[in-house]
Formats: sequence, C-alpha cells, structure tokens
Amino acid sequence: MNALTYWVGMAGTAAFAVTAVLAVAPRGIDFFGVTVLGIITAIGGGTIRDIILGVPVFWASDLAYIWVALAASLATFAANSLFTRKEIYRLMLYLDGLGASLFAIAATDKVWALDFGRPLAPVILGIITAIGGGLIRDVLAGRQTLLMTREIYAIPISFGCALYVALLAFAPEYRSLGAATAIVLIFALRAAAIHWNLTVPDRLASKPKEG
Amino acid sequence: MNALTYWVGMAGTAAFAVTAVLAVAPRGIDFFGVTVLGIITAIGGGTIRDIILGVPVFWASDLAYIWVALAASLATFAANSLFTRKEIYRLMLYLDGLGASLFAIAATDKVWALDFGRPLAPVILGIITAIGGGLIRDVLAGRQTLLMTREIYAIPISFGCALYVALLAFAPEYRSLGAATAIVLIFALRAAAIHWNLTVPDRLASKPKEG
Amino acid sequence: MNALTYWVGMAGTAAFAVTAVLAVAPRGIDFFGVTVLGIITAIGGGTIRDIILGVPVFWASDLAYIWVALAASLATFAANSLFTRKEIYRLMLYLDGLGASLFAIAATDKVWALDFGRPLAPVILGIITAIGGGLIRDVLAGRQTLLMTREIYAIPISFGCALYVALLAFAPEYRSLGAATAIVLIFALRAAAIHWNLTVPDRLASKPKEG
Repeated sequence: MNALTYWVGMAGTAAFAVTAVLAVAPRGIDFFGVTVLGIITAIGGGTIRDIILGVPVFWASDLAYIWVALAASLATFAANSLFTRKEIYRLMLYLDGLGASLFAIAATDKVWALDFGRPLAPVILGIITAIGGGLIRDVLAGRQTLLMTREIYAIPISFGCALYVALLAFAPEYRSLGAATAIVLIFALRAAAIHWNLTVPDRLASKPKEG
Repeated sequence: MNALTYWVGMAGTAAFAVTAVLAVAPRGIDFFGVTVLGIITAIGGGTIRDIILGVPVFWASDLAYIWVALAASLATFAANSLFTRKEIYRLMLYLDGLGASLFAIAATDKVWALDFGRPLAPVILGIITAIGGGLIRDVLAGRQTLLMTREIYAIPISFGCALYVALLAFAPEYRSLGAATAIVLIFALRAAAIHWNLTVPDRLASKPKEG
Repeated sequence: MNALTYWVGMAGTAAFAVTAVLAVAPRGIDFFGVTVLGIITAIGGGTIRDIILGVPVFWASDLAYIWVALAASLATFAANSLFTRKEIYRLMLYLDGLGASLFAIAATDKVWALDFGRPLAPVILGIITAIGGGLIRDVLAGRQTLLMTREIYAIPISFGCALYVALLAFAPEYRSLGAATAIVLIFALRAAAIHWNLTVPDRLASKPKEG
C-alpha cells in the first residue's frame, strides 16, 4: 500500500470513530462505552473480513489503526460540542464516506489477490469491511442498523466493488486506475446522498405493514 | 456429499433466504437490506461453524450457496405477493425446516469426523449451523430472536443432533442410516410444530415477571 | 495453569452462566433459550478472543467449561427461586466479578505470551474475554448491553489489564505476583461497585439528549 492510501486510510479510521461516537453520544453513555463503540466501528468490518478469510487480523501487525480510533473516540467524547458543529460534522460525514470507499475497494482487491471465492466473495467482503463495524456498533448500542434504514451508504459500495471485480476479471492491466476510479465513483455517489439528503425510493423497498 | 443431499441443501438454502425475506419485509426495507439479510440467514450459521472449527468457510469453495440465496432473496422481494400466498408460504416453512434438519446433521457429522470437541461440540455446532444465520438476521433487523420465543425449532434439532452423536459413538456402522433417520426425525417434529402451531409449554419456560 | 486458577475459573464459568440465566429469566423464556444464553455468556468472550488470535477455541480441548455452564444454566433454571434469594444472588455477583477478573488477566497473559499486537491487543482481548459473552447474551436477548449502562464492570477490568501489561513490559520478573495483584485489584473495585451500588458519574458520560 502506498503512502497516500495509508494516510487516507488513517483519516477514514478516525472519521469512522468520530461519526460512531457522535451517533451514540446522545444516549448518554460513559467514556468506556464510547471508546469501545468507536474502536469497534473503526476496525470491526476489517476484522470480520480477516476472520472469514482465515488470515491474521490487520490491526495485529499495525496497531496505529486502533491508536487512531482510540484517540479519535476520546477526542470526540471530550470535545463533543466541537464535533457537533455543523461544518465539522459535515466534514466528518464526507471523510467517513471516503474511508468507506477506500476500505471497500482495498478489501475487494485483497480478497481477489488471495483468489478467495472469486468473483462473489471479493464483493461481499468489500461490503462487510465498509459496513460491518457500523453494524456491530448499532447492535451493541441498541440502534436501528443501516440495513433497516433507507440510507444510501452500502448501495454505492456494492456497485463500486462489483464494478471493480469486473475490471479485475476482464481488464486486470488497469488495476490501479480502476481502483482509483471505483473509489472516486463510490465516494461521489455517497457525497451526493449526503449533500442532497437522498434516500432509497419507496419503489425499491418492501411495503411496510400498517402498524 | 451425494447428489441428493446437495440438492436438498440448495433447496434448504433457498428456503432459508425466502423465509428470511418474508420475516423482514413487513418492516419496509430496501432491496439491499433484504438481500443482505437473506444471504446472512442462509449461510450465517455454517460460516460461524467453520470459523469456530478453524476451517475455510464452506461457501468460499462453492459459491452456489450464495448465488442461490441471492437469487431467492431478490425473487422473494420482487414477487412478495406470490410468496406470501398461504400455500407457498407453508411450503417454504416446511422446506426451511427440512433444510435446517439437513444442515444440522451434516454439521454434526462434519464436526465429529474432524474429532473436534467430541461429544459436545458436534451437537453445539450442529445447532449453531441450523439457527445461527437466523439469529444474526433477527439481531440486525431488530427483531426478537428465536431464543426469546417459544417456537419449537431448535429443540428438535438439539435432540436429533444429540441422538446422532450417540449413534456415532456407539454404533458407527449405522452412520448413513442414522443420519437419514435423525434428519427425518427432526423434520417430523418441526413439521408437527408447524402443522399444529405447537409452542413450548409454560412449565418448560421461566416465569415472566409482571410488567 | 495451576490447579487453583483452574478451579476458580470453573467457579467463574458457573457464575457467568448463573447470572446470565437470572438476567434473562424474567422475560419468560424456555429451557432451551436459557441454556444457550447461559453457555454463550460463559464461553463467548474467550471464543471471540481465540478466533481473533487465530488459535483453536479453548473449550474444544477441555469441554468441562461447557459442561459446567450447561449444568449451571439448567440448575438455575430449575431452582430459580433458590438463586434469586438475596444472599445467593449476591454471592453469584461476587463470583461473577471474580471470574471476570481472572479471565481478563489470564487472557492478557495468553495474548502477551503469543506476542500478539503488543501492547494494545493484550488489553483489548482481556476486556473482550471478560465481557464479550455478556454482550452477545444481551444482544440475543434484546436487552440493553453493558456498554450502554453506567455499570462499573468493564472499567476496572480495562484498568487492571493495562496495569498488568505495563508490568509485563517493564518488570516481567514479577509476572506471577503481578497477575495475582491485578486480579485482586480488579475484583476489589468490582466488589466495591457491587457493595455500594456505584455507577459511573455523569461527568464521565456524554450528555443524554432530551427525549
């Protein structure tokens, strides 16, 4: 992994922890709970991916991911009023989206390179890497998970990972360019969803039963 | 695994996904959430089993399980009114029960053959294989899990797996016959529970506290 | 592991199962659900630890942990009125706290010895070992998890594990003495919290949003 990817990954890790803390803080939880949920959100998805792959978890050999998540969680807890300021919060949402794009494509690339369950597993594990940590956080915090909302978060990721897999299969010589394009594409869709508050339209969802 | 078992397994996988989608659809969730929950229900239990065993996850070498779960989830989402028709829904419940019986005994057999934690682990991992995916689905969907209901689903499975383990321990020469018998037995009990709407009686449950 | 540690571990395993059953019993669940939740609480944390470490799960080679959890769960279910008697319940809370202290430090020691992700991973996996099973139980039972309460349970554990890691790093010659001291320290803090009903003060928690 080159230096740019590494640093974007660290910024994404921090953003995952920050948005996690901001999501659970309104419930009034203590610094321990906040930190655990921040770290789980930041590294949970990649941990599930590595366990399913049967390879050592990524953070065991580079604890920087956990230190960053820990520091970001505590900072957000301590300076909550700073991070809930509208412009900072928006910045964090975008960084979170950028991190998710990067982690998803990096995971798809890793799984493909391991020749693990091609072509479906690289897509599935790309998605899990990006959203798995947030799912665990919501379950532990008793919140509704992403799957039950109409948020446009995982759909661009699925789309981008599938596209990247098609490229790896049919035009592997464009791997670097393709990865960059997929990341930009996912992020652009997510950014549009944040900017215009887009959600999945009713006709692409099941009809809720009248309560 | 012989051909019959394989095809019953695929039908069971599809039925797991269909019943999962029907269970969560009344909450009004989008096609992405539906598909993820369908796939997780179909392959989640076997995935946990393989992770605990420390062996490669079963679907990495045969993606047909995931393709079937994906197709079944999307078909159920698209043709919801077909699958909620009483006779189709019933058929799916029975197929789901048959799949669970088969997966449980196949898992018990696999764990026993690996000589892993005999005699208790083959029973436990048989149960996890059959119900693990549904538990994850319910947790992610914010539904009450099977463990908190009085449904007669996991109890016949536990009973059948324990019986099959006793047979493997004391009369291993009847392995094939025993496996078939255990599957039929579990399925018969589950089918009876479906047919007569049986639930676990009060005296076998803890006394709920007055709210 | 010497004999004393082993037997304290078994008592702790039983106490984990007993307190788990007492926590979920007021919801009126059947003997199967009770047993599954009791066993998961008792062995879930250590199982997650071993999966993350990539080593065989601890109970596969010593099923006594599961037999004890199974027996304790069924006994608590059957003799619920005995275990809810104030003095017995208190005893179980203390035993549960002692078990958690022991499991946490034993896990930290194991992870450190494997040279896995020092210095952070031994602390994190110590915490996961102690509280992971209870978290899974609460999620499956639809209860609020420990992370969302202000209970003083995991904080002394984190503190004790971090202290023990510092000792392993800077004064490894005092390993046995240090482990014993850390266990006693964690237990003393937990016992104080039980005795005086202490919770995390408001100023160490995020401000809940007005509902």
